[in-house]
Amino acid sequence: MPGQDRVFRENKEDILKRLSRIEGQVRGIARMIEEDRYCVDVLNQVAASRAALNKVGLLLLETHVRGCVVRGIQHGDHEATATELMAVISKLAK
Amino acid sequence: MPGQDRVFRENKEDILKRLSRIEGQVRGIARMIEEDRYCVDVLNQVAASRAALNKVGLLLLETHVRGCVVRGIQHGDHEATATELMAVISKLAK
Amino acid sequence: MPGQDRVFRENKEDILKRLSRIEGQVRGIARMIEEDRYCVDVLNQVAASRAALNKVGLLLLETHVRGCVVRGIQHGDHEATATELMAVISKLAK
Amino acid sequence: MPGQDRVFRENKEDILKRLSRIEGQVRGIARMIEEDRYCVDVLNQVAASRAALNKVGLLLLETHVRGCVVRGIQHGDHEATATELMAVISKLAK
Repeated sequence: MPGQDRVFRENKEDILKRLSRIEGQVRGIARMIEEDRYCVDVLNQVAASRAALNKVGLLLLETHVRGCVVRGIQHGDHEATATELMAVISKLAK
Repeated sequence: MPGQDRVFRENKEDILKRLSRIEGQVRGIARMIEEDRYCVDVLNQVAASRAALNKVGLLLLETHVRGCVVRGIQHGDHEATATELMAVISKLAK
Repeated sequence: MPGQDRVFRENKEDILKRLSRIEGQVRGIARMIEEDRYCVDVLNQVAASRAALNKVGLLLLETHVRGCVVRGIQHGDHEATATELMAVISKLAK
Repeated sequence: MPGQDRVFRENKEDILKRLSRIEGQVRGIARMIEEDRYCVDVLNQVAASRAALNKVGLLLLETHVRGCVVRGIQHGDHEATATELMAVISKLAK
């Protein structure tokens, strides 16, 4: 769907940069553990990665809402669209 | 501290495996976005990585509690130990 | 808006029952504290109330999505509707 | 245990005030629903109550850590104390 791609492209580069940073953070946590770094420092890195991943989740959810959800409802699939949206929000909320 | 190392080693390998898996998941999310995969599938992967990272946080916190917190309190630093523990829990809770 | 009311009424009674139960749980936590009950028991009650309140949040969010969000998008206000939805999800995610 | 009471008393009044405020917030949410108030306003109240309850959870956890956990470890029950602490943190983290 061209509409989807357009909405998506606006955030795509930003989200990819964030994911690459998170990948580096997760690798950094592993390195800290291998080097027997102080566990509170390691935990602070876990908290930072977690916050960064939550932010990516919210950005992707926004993309989904502004793209697929809007189009799904405009095309008359409002029941299925709402059900799918709530399912993904419930998973993210866990 | 030898006590710390011993407690830690028990979980170390398990946590490193989990982190390596999370790193792969995060890279997989980036790939899905590059391939313009359906955003709900991407979001489900984000939810899975998030849950996996939360689990690592709890495992590391347990290591911290059974190691540093126990020793800190046994050695008489209970105020500082409790303050530090609460600070890290507050960060993880965000 | 009659549509809103109809969608809402389906969940209204269930949500009100849940809220009344949560109110009782919160009052119960206060009573436990006044009676100097063991703090782990109090914390377990806090965790239960928190889970119950999260569930109410998800049910109300679903009502909002199936009602106001669907109508907002059908009536052409998709930008404002999506912005408002994301704002409320961000607050709930904190 | 006198030690427990002393630590606890410091926070007790503050926590009871917070709980009474949360009880009022939860009752307020029910009233808003009965009055068919706009669902986004209701959801914002849910988010506020949730944040307030999380804060109470952290305050009670701090009381537990500074009281029972410190004493449990000082009295030699470090295994059981750590297991119980992690169990309650896992429940709160859900």
